[in-house]
Formats: sequence, C-alpha cells, structure tokens
Amino acid sequence: MDYKIAVIPGDGIGPEIVGASIKVLDKIAEKFNHTFNYTEVLAGGAAIDACDNPLPQETVDICLDSDAVLLGALGGPKWDNLPGDKRPEAGLLGLRKSLGLYANLRPAILYEELKAACPLKPEIIGEGLDIMVVRELTGDVYFGEKGRDGDFAAWDIMKYTRPEVLRIAKKAFEIAMKRDKKVTNVDKANVLEVSRFWRSCVEEVAKDYPEVELNHLYVDNAAMQLVINPKQFDVIVTGNLFGDILSDEASMITGSIGMLPSASMADGKFGMFEPIHGSAPDIANQDKANPIATIVSVAMMLRYSLDLIAEADAIEAAVKKTLAQGYRTGDIFSAGMALVGTTQMGQKIIDNL
Amino acid sequence: MDYKIAVIPGDGIGPEIVGASIKVLDKIAEKFNHTFNYTEVLAGGAAIDACDNPLPQETVDICLDSDAVLLGALGGPKWDNLPGDKRPEAGLLGLRKSLGLYANLRPAILYEELKAACPLKPEIIGEGLDIMVVRELTGDVYFGEKGRDGDFAAWDIMKYTRPEVLRIAKKAFEIAMKRDKKVTNVDKANVLEVSRFWRSCVEEVAKDYPEVELNHLYVDNAAMQLVINPKQFDVIVTGNLFGDILSDEASMITGSIGMLPSASMADGKFGMFEPIHGSAPDIANQDKANPIATIVSVAMMLRYSLDLIAEADAIEAAVKKTLAQGYRTGDIFSAGMALVGTTQMGQKIIDNL
Ligand SMILES: CC(C)[C@H](C(=O)O)[C@@H](O)C(=O)O
Ligand SMILES: CC(C)[C@H](C(=O)O)[C@@H](O)C(=O)O
Repeated sequence: MDYKIAVIPGDGIGPEIVGASIKVLDKIAEKFNHTFNYTEVLAGGAAIDACDNPLPQETVDICLDSDAVLLGALGGPKWDNLPGDKRPEAGLLGLRKSLGLYANLRPAILYEELKAACPLKPEIIGEGLDIMVVRELTGDVYFGEKGRDGDFAAWDIMKYTRPEVLRIAKKAFEIAMKRDKKVTNVDKANVLEVSRFWRSCVEEVAKDYPEVELNHLYVDNAAMQLVINPKQFDVIVTGNLFGDILSDEASMITGSIGMLPSASMADGKFGMFEPIHGSAPDIANQDKANPIATIVSVAMMLRYSLDLIAEADAIEAAVKKTLAQGYRTGDIFSAGMALVGTTQMGQKIIDNL
Repeated sequence: MDYKIAVIPGDGIGPEIVGASIKVLDKIAEKFNHTFNYTEVLAGGAAIDACDNPLPQETVDICLDSDAVLLGALGGPKWDNLPGDKRPEAGLLGLRKSLGLYANLRPAILYEELKAACPLKPEIIGEGLDIMVVRELTGDVYFGEKGRDGDFAAWDIMKYTRPEVLRIAKKAFEIAMKRDKKVTNVDKANVLEVSRFWRSCVEEVAKDYPEVELNHLYVDNAAMQLVINPKQFDVIVTGNLFGDILSDEASMITGSIGMLPSASMADGKFGMFEPIHGSAPDIANQDKANPIATIVSVAMMLRYSLDLIAEADAIEAAVKKTLAQGYRTGDIFSAGMALVGTTQMGQKIIDNL
C-alpha cells in the first residue's frame, strides 16, 4: 500500500530523532512491502527562521493532504523572546487547531528494563505502570479569548463547549473499553464553573458505557495520587491545561520520558505523532538524543492512523529487544550497559526488525 | 500578653485536630504567661448545617476583629452536591477573599524521622527537602468572572492585575532573603497572556532583590521537576491554580501530608493557619486523625502573626521530640513505633513542652 506522511523535523534534536525514525519506517516499508511517501514541511523555530511564520499555510495544507503527520519537537530558547503569536509554540497550537487534533493520547508506561530509572520507590510501582492520559487538545484556556487591560491586567478565558467535552469523553471511554475499563475524570469542579459543566458532560457520556467504572478527582488530588498511588489509574481524561500538567507528571514518574510517544488524533484516523519530550537544544547535533520516543511514536502512527498493526507490533518488539540487549543512550544509561548515540540506537533497532 | 484568636473547627476531623491544638496552645499560655482568647465561629459544612450559609457574616466580622485565625478543615461528601456558591469550598474561598489573605505559604518539609514514608527514592531526596511554596490566594481563575452559555458552554476568566502580582512576588522575594535566596517562578508563559503578564511583573520585583537568584519554569515542567529533582527548589512563587496543584504535589513528595501546616497571610501580620490536609470524613470522630499538621500550624501562627518566636520554636521542638520518642498516629505509623490516637499524640506533645 501507498501512504502519504507529512514530516515535521522541527527544532533542536528534532531532525536527528526524526531522521532515525524515518530509517526505521523505511525498513518497515521494505519488510512489509509498503510505500511511505514523505513530504518534509516546516513549523516552529525552523519555520520562523525560514519564513518568519511559525506555521506557514503550506504546512497545514500538506498535513491535511496526508494520512498522518510525524513531528520531532518544536521550540528553543532562541525564539523565547518573540511575542506570543510569533513563537514556535504558536506553530504547535496552530497545528493542533487547524488539523482538528482534539484528542491527545499520552501513555505513561514503565519499561521493565528501565525500572531502575523510576524516581518512585519499588513498592509504589509494583509490577509496573500503564496509564493512558487522554487530554483534550483544542479547547480550554489554551484557545479561549485572551487580552490585556493596558498595563494593569491580563486575562485568558477558560472555556469548554458541550460538543468538545462529549467527544473527548467518548474517546476516553472507547479507549477504556479496550483496556481495564476504568476512567478517572480530573477537573476542579469544587471551584470552576467550566469544570462543573465538564463533569456533567462526562457523566452523560458515561451512561453509554455501563461496563466502565468512572470516578472523579480534583486536579490537586490527582497530582498527589500520581505520586503516591499511580497504580490506581487506567485511563485519565481531562482538559487541555490539567492534561498538560498531569501527563508530564505521569510520564516523569515512569522515569523514562525519553521513551514515551504521543498521538494527537482528529475525528477518524488522521493524527499527528510525536515524542513527549521537548527539543533539548543543549544536546542538539551531537548524536546524543534518544530516538526511541519518536520511533515508538511511529509505531503509534502505524497502529492508529494507518491500521498497520503487525508493523506497529514489529517496531515495539524491536525496541524491547534492543533494550534487552543492553543498548542505552545517555539519558537512560546505567552501569554495565552499552552506551550508544542516536544513529547507532536507530540502527540497532533496525537490525532487530 | 493578651491575644484574640478566631477558631474555626470546621468539618470531619476538624474539631478533633483543632481541639488537640488548642490544648497545646493553652500549655504555651501557661508556660509563657500569655492569654489567648478563643472565639469559636462557623464556616463550611458546619455553617451550612447550622444556618444554610457556608460563611456567615458574623464569622467574617469576628475573624477581622482577631489577631489570627486557626482553621481545622472544611468540606466533605455530605455537601458535595450543593450548587457552587452554597458549598463548603465557597466558605473557604470567601474567607480568603474577605480577610484579604493573598499569600498562601506552604512549606514542604521532609521530617527526618519520617523519611521512610517518602514515595521518592532516597537518592533523589538526599539530605532532606525544604521547599516553600508561595501561592497567590485571592486572584486567578478562582475569583474571575464565571458563567454559562445556556446548556452549551461554561467559562471562567483567569486574570491577574499588576498590584496582585507585585505584592505576592514581593512576599516570595522577602521570604527567599531569609532562606537560600532562590526563587523559582512557575507559570505557563508560552501559552497564556496572563502568565506573560505575571512573569513581567515578577521580573520587575526581582530588580529590587539583586541577591536573589530568579528562574522561571513552565508549570508542566515544574510538575516534573518536583518528582525528579525536588532539591533544586528553595522558594516557588506561582498563581492560585498552579499553586493549588504544585503545593499539593510538593507536600505529597515529602510523604507526610499529615505533618504539614500552611499560613494564609494578609498585608501586615494577620493570617489564617490551617493544616494542608483535608477534612478526612472517613476517620472523623474516631480519635485517629494526626493532629501534628494543625499543631505546627499553631506554631506558624505564633511565629508569623503574634511574633512569639520562642513559643513557636518550643512547639516545633516538642513535636520533633515526640516523633523521636517513637509516637505515631496511624497515617505515619511504621513497624516498631508506638501507635497513638489524636488525643494521646496531643498529650505527648504537651508533655514534651
Ligand atoms: C509547548 C507547549 C505549548 C505544549 C503545551 O502546553 O501543550 C507542550 O507543553 C505540550 O504538552 O505539548
Ligand atoms: C478546597 C479547595 C477550594 C482548596 C483550593 O483549591 O484552594 C484546596 O484545594 C486548597 O488548596 O486549600
């Protein structure tokens, strides 16, 4: 089969980790007899440098004309002092909005081989961790109206509409049906009107999934529970802002943020896939970055957008095998393991395919 | 000296832990020759039950006429289904607003004796933890306008004014001057207008404190750093919503939330003092609750509002001694220690005074 993939290498370590991942994808193409047609496009800092715009219209058009989008990472200190709407982040938020990517799926998984890197005590982790954070991605205070009252004040509106909440809740329950059938809704309904509204919409959707157990946590409590009792979670559903905070916290308690992928899905099968970690400008162009999060993001892309399940499984198995063989990039290195760079880690995974 | 203290026992375990703390305060009065005049007032669930109003005007008046306020804990499932403005939380938010308590100080300290309860690995904790979270308490999305667009949408406005940010930033820098001279500002300036504004006001205040090192973290990153590298923090300053989440996370990584006090300060010396933990209705009226967080909140009250430093030191020393003697309530119990209830723990601390 032929597939069209838009590729956004992005900034910092982006081009290196995307480069390594494309090689893995090429190997999959060869092995499983597919054709992946890549179109490289600009967004974020690279786009600001090239054309003074963090999200050129051409990028949006090419993404929309593709089966899926693969993204490295955007941003860096170089562009941090630009005004809000000219920053790399504006490119990322613009991509999410213009591609309709309302459902951000962020698995927080503990890799057996990397248990030692987990910051939590072994008795808290037990047999491992497997949490799926389902974060709404195109609403909330991220996209509400914002403004200043001269030099005196500034504000952003935190807002959700019924259709926005219903569709993300539905997504979370659908995912829970394929997992442990437990959804934890996180909000701040004891204070925020938007949270009370959000919660009532989630409860409405829950009625269609009688097999799924639903519970509610306030966001402050959820931030605590992730640290002291993360094993209680199966699927977490929450808004854009709380999801930003909690998904990062959840990924960090696994101890291996350099390993974690994410999917940002539109209605249907279209999605954008990227590692959870950032652009790490401090180690850019040194062949040091861990490409695994991006490589498993490619696996997610094959699974969710292209329906290529065996291919996705093959990548994930190759990653596990490579870790079992003891290969480690610097971020996950521990004594007795073999230290490798970005390129070599990619090559080892390809060898194991 | 004579002091007027308004006392709000509150709900759940509130009356028990406040009761134990008042006995400690009575012992201080005797020992140091002070008179504490207590006036008990209603707020939260108890006030809803008694007069259908989570914050009677009389409560506000008596608090304003006092030197300080001691609060147990408010809320519980019994009142969870009331409309927003009739809930116990509305009483708490109303107290903060009407008493002008804009600065919430939440120390996250690891008690040497309770190190075993910390969920993080020993190598992350090192010699201990001592973070002061300075949370703005009367602004942000907590107190902005809010509303619904019929059944279609709901919204809350996240807003800060210049005077609000300047005064909390000033507070944080003043506190840092007495500690390790390091302030970490937490916001979401890459997305929110209110955060960009907040950050510029914090930077303005920083100019008056050239000895204090200031750095900035996005809230998602701060949530991660607390888990993997909490020792980097001295003073954290942040807004009401982010402070709610991060101060709870910070207290949880110490492993002893039943031990942590908080102060909510107005301009000058007036403040309200309460434990960080909640009303724990599941163990109410069983003489099981840990009174230590409330007792050390009393110490904070003596230190910050009444300028009774030796008295505050005496309480803190008595608590440490009691822990060193091996007395533990259920929440902090470990093998080999002596299990005691609320009353007995209070008595042991008094004996050690
Ligand atoms: C870079 C930033 C705008 C973004 C967000 O807040 O969504 C990032 O933190 C993320 O989670 O993808
Ligand atoms: C009960 C709730 C309104 C309150 C808050 O969010 O401020 C609590 O979580 C706290 O931190 O004191």
